[in-house]
Order: sequence, then C-alpha cells, then structure tokens
Amino acid sequence: MSIVKAYAAQNSTSPLSPFTFQRRAPGPHDVELDILYCGVCHSDIHQVRNEWGDSIFPMVPGHEIVGRVSYVGSHVKKFKTGDVAAVGCLVDSCRTCASCREGLEQYCEVHSVPTYNGYEMDRKTPTYGGYSKKIVVDEAFVLKVSEKLKLAGVAPLLCAGITTYSPLRHWKIGPGHRVAIAGLGGLGHMGVKFATALGAEVTVLSSSAQKESDAYRLGAHHFVVTTNHSQMRKVKRHFDFILNTISATHDYNSFLSLLKTNGTMVLVGVPPQAVPVQAFNLIGGRRSLAGSLIGGIPETQEMLDYCARHEITSDVEVIAMQDIEKAYTRMLKGDVRYRFVIDINSL
Amino acid sequence: MSIVKAYAAQNSTSPLSPFTFQRRAPGPHDVELDILYCGVCHSDIHQVRNEWGDSIFPMVPGHEIVGRVSYVGSHVKKFKTGDVAAVGCLVDSCRTCASCREGLEQYCEVHSVPTYNGYEMDRKTPTYGGYSKKIVVDEAFVLKVSEKLKLAGVAPLLCAGITTYSPLRHWKIGPGHRVAIAGLGGLGHMGVKFATALGAEVTVLSSSAQKESDAYRLGAHHFVVTTNHSQMRKVKRHFDFILNTISATHDYNSFLSLLKTNGTMVLVGVPPQAVPVQAFNLIGGRRSLAGSLIGGIPETQEMLDYCARHEITSDVEVIAMQDIEKAYTRMLKGDVRYRFVIDINSL
Repeated sequence: MSIVKAYAAQNSTSPLSPFTFQRRAPGPHDVELDILYCGVCHSDIHQVRNEWGDSIFPMVPGHEIVGRVSYVGSHVKKFKTGDVAAVGCLVDSCRTCASCREGLEQYCEVHSVPTYNGYEMDRKTPTYGGYSKKIVVDEAFVLKVSEKLKLAGVAPLLCAGITTYSPLRHWKIGPGHRVAIAGLGGLGHMGVKFATALGAEVTVLSSSAQKESDAYRLGAHHFVVTTNHSQMRKVKRHFDFILNTISATHDYNSFLSLLKTNGTMVLVGVPPQAVPVQAFNLIGGRRSLAGSLIGGIPETQEMLDYCARHEITSDVEVIAMQDIEKAYTRMLKGDVRYRFVIDINSL
Repeated sequence: MSIVKAYAAQNSTSPLSPFTFQRRAPGPHDVELDILYCGVCHSDIHQVRNEWGDSIFPMVPGHEIVGRVSYVGSHVKKFKTGDVAAVGCLVDSCRTCASCREGLEQYCEVHSVPTYNGYEMDRKTPTYGGYSKKIVVDEAFVLKVSEKLKLAGVAPLLCAGITTYSPLRHWKIGPGHRVAIAGLGGLGHMGVKFATALGAEVTVLSSSAQKESDAYRLGAHHFVVTTNHSQMRKVKRHFDFILNTISATHDYNSFLSLLKTNGTMVLVGVPPQAVPVQAFNLIGGRRSLAGSLIGGIPETQEMLDYCARHEITSDVEVIAMQDIEKAYTRMLKGDVRYRFVIDINSL
C-alpha cells in the first residue's frame, strides 16, 4: 500500500484542500500510474458540492487521468513500466452482465465502479480519483495512450472526448450527414472536432454569439445563435443528428424541430429538471430523442487511437492543483476554453 | 361530378347529421370507390369537436376506408372496376420531396393531403372522408385489398393497423425481442397482433387489470398492470422495445425505465400536454424515445399484404351510420373491443 498525496473535499461546503490516503497495493492484474495530468469536469463541481445528493466524503475528484506506469502486477499483459496510460470514468464493473459482455461497462446492470465518489465491487471501499499523485487500477480498465499526443490535452478525452465520440459513432455519423452540436463547452468543443473529423457538415448551435469565431476555428462549418429566431427558422428540418451537450435546463422541442425525418437528438448533458417533450415533435418526423453515457472500455481505447491518428486533443488551460477553487469559479461563469487540466506535478 | 350522401359535423358542438356534397369527376389517374366500410378512429372525435383547433367545417370524418372500385380513369393501371380497394389517412402529397421519394408521404415536407379535414394540393379544396357513399382518389394513394379478408375488419388496418405495423417494422422487431405494447385499445390490440405475428415475446402494459384475458386472447405472452408497483419492478430493464399507444397524458419515465440498454420506446399516441422527460432515464441506458406517424403508401400496401398472408384483421363492432354519436360516447368511455366500423350500406 502506498500513501498518496491528493486534494479532497471534506464536505459539500469547504474548499478542496490537501489530503493524504492509502492506495491499495497493486494486485497481479493491477497497474499503478504516476498521474501526470487530470482534467477538471463539470461533474466534479456537482459532486464536491453534493448537488446530485449522492456524495461520499472525503472526496478526491477527477476522472480524466493521464499518467505513466510505475508498476505492473505479475499477470498484467497490456502495460509495462514507463508506458503512458490513462484512466477514465470507470475503474471496474461486474464484467458478466449483457452490457459488460458487449463492452458497454458504463451500462453495467449489476454495479459499475466510478473512478471517484463510488464504491469498489465490494460495495464498501470508496474510490478516489485523479486529483492525486498515484492511482491503482485493474488493467482491464486502463487505456493505452500514444506518446505522440500532447498529454495535457489527452486528459479530457477520457470523459469529454468519449462522451461525444461514442454517440457520433453509435449513430454512424459520417460524410453526407448534417450534424449540429448544441452547446460549445468542454463537451461541445470535442463534439465539433470529432464530427468534422468523421466527415460531417457541422453546425454549432449556441446561445452565445461571441463563440462564433471559436466554432469556426474548431472546424465547424456553420454557426447558429439559438436566441435568433430567423437563424433558427432557416435550419428547421435541417439536421440528421443533434449532439446536445447542454446541461442547463432548456427547451428540447425547439431543437427537435430542427431534425429532418428520421433525425435523432442525443442528450449527453443532464439538465437538473425533467424537460417537457411534445409527442408530436417526435411523431411528426419519426424523430428520436436519445441519451448516451460516456463509452465502454473498448470504445474508449478506439477513441484514443482515433485521436492519435487524427492528432486530436482537447483545448486546455493547465493549472496548478492549488488553483482548483479559482478554476471552479471560472467554470461556473463559462470562463474556460475549453477544459482546465491540473498539472499533478504541482501537488 | 357526383352528389354523394354522407354524415357531417356542421360545427364543433352539433351532433353529426346527414349531408350531401359533390365529389370531383374522376380524372385519368383517379379511382372511384363505392365505400363499403369506414372505421371510426379516436381522431375523428378530436377533429369533429375541434379539439386540435384546426377543424374545417362542414367535416365528413373517416380515414379507414374499404370499398369496391366503381370507376377507373383512363390512365389507371393498378385497379379495375369491381376490385376491393382501400384508402387510409392520406390522399395526396407533393411526391417530390426527400420523404415522398422514399415512400414516406406521411412526412411530406411540402404538403400532404389528409383524407378529411384538410385541403387538396391546391390548398383550397377541402377533403371529405369515408363517412360517405363514394370517394375519388388518385390511384397512387389507393391500396389493394385481398378479398380473402373480412372487409369490416380490414377498415381499421388503414390507420390503427399501419400506425402500429410501421414502427414495429422500422425498428426491425422480430424473434428474440421482448416487446411491450402500452395501452390496449384500437391501436394497442393491433400492436399485439403484429408484434406476436412478427415473432416477438409480447407483454401488454395496461392500467386496466380486466383487460388481461383479452390480452392473452389477442396473442400476448405476458400482462403487467401498470399501477401494480411490484409487477412493474419485475420488468425493469426488461424490454427491447415499447410501442406506446396511450394518448392520455401519462408518465413516460416509468416506462423508459423498463427498457434494456439500447432500448426504444416509440410514441404513436399524442397526449394533450407535453410530458416531462428525465434526461438520465435516456442517458443511463442509451435509450431512445421516438415517435412514428401512420405509414407511407408502399408500407401500407406491404401491411395489407402481410395481413392477407397472416389472416390478420382488426376486432370490430359494426354499426349503422345513424349510431355514430352513440359510438363516440362509448369510445370516450373505452367501451369498444376494439374498433367501431360503420357499415356504409346503412347510409
């Protein structure tokens, strides 16, 4: 077992502060990583402030983890000491249910283990995330990372990346598709990068007119201000697919009406309230409103390999661990382009 | 032009009463039918009472029409005098947009012409439906019907039938699928017949425990009372597909939680209010909430042919035209198993 330095929330109201805890001794199937970078996800804020009501304290957040392998267990096959590797939102699951057998561990029907703010498969050992110096994870839940990529920009791929890549792949987006990315934040900016790389014609839908130049810089072909009625009217029945990354409560119906016959809008953001849906908005064009949660381990590896081939990383601002509360404050104002990443060396 | 006897609503509050009007003289592409039977759809009530706010009076309802061909225009190829034929919810569309070219005339992006309570492609000639002795329709929107089938039971196939057949086919339902049919009325009873014929394992979800024996008689394998929490708990994450035929306002979320990973619930009923949807109910299992509207002309013909091969018709109670108001009253109480059909000979 090793004593690990970290930052933790002791309760839902205190700022994050230095903390030490023990990681388990690596077992025969475990990989130990020296963490290099950890991305800062909006869900970190929700959970340290107990906004979803299921927080476990003390809490070490962080599920966008890139590090270097410092130890491998005797049965580990995929990794060796010195490799760059990554850990995302999950560190274990039942591995036997129908979803797990399909490589969809995120939909495990028994118990999937979140990287932090959850319990291991024993249902009693709490998990601690990437705002820490080291992590120990079964190799089945550790991903390979190409050293060619800028590693700080790789960290957010483990959540913001896979969350947007997975639905674009599942719904087979490619050339000839008109795709809208609703919301241009941490998730949305990755959605634009992936949808354009996959060959789609990409429109950003945003309530902020000042994001237009960024949208084009990221690769989008069109930009629509959602509060501008005439711009919205011009894209009625226009899109095959809308990737909706907005987590604030908003009207789904106005977006659904932008879909062509057989179009699909996929939610990856979770608004705090249930949103009323007009049945005829779906029926009138055989439209679908769907949801998608991160991605399974095989697809997360596929995404990282795709990023290595296409030189895709997240646009990040690297911060020191000590600046985490300032980062949270700026995130709540939307003041980040597009992801904060903690340099764990600063810990 | 021929003078046609009918029943019409003169306004949204008077009972239906005898009415005569002129049908157009059949053009070279037109088929004229002597109507034999016309099904009574719940949407007839909504429209004669102007509950959707778009009613055109006088209104001759009826879009589940079976008749015998009495005249064919000089260019008509598919029909000859004496054939049994049918007309459903649509009598024309633009025929050139992307949806029409795919045979999805119900999603025509320009203007599709409803069989009643709408306007022809000239946008000014009102259409009159099947509560009448004759109808004249372009052959492109007339369907062939096998004389082997009981014709009174064929009429409801033109709306209740295709509305349930189309989504089951579009989502490729077949052997190995667990399908739920939510609601056991005019649509639901056809959903059970089609889903079982297609080889699925079928469960009826109904708030009325007394429909259980009927559900089994229609071919369902299981029956769940939706107000019984322990029965509902047993089918959590259980279904691949839910065909939701309920048109009263109800909670979608409790049904969505019955879907497996990647499951889809398709709405074919239109509740009067928008229904709140919890995003996580979709995201947590990559579930879809979709809608489907009747079916296009090619698929309606496919459905009628399928019914002829599988000897499927609707369970009907045949009434005289003069009893239409009594039928409406009974429908509003749910007192029909499962569709009223007007014997037009009574007119």
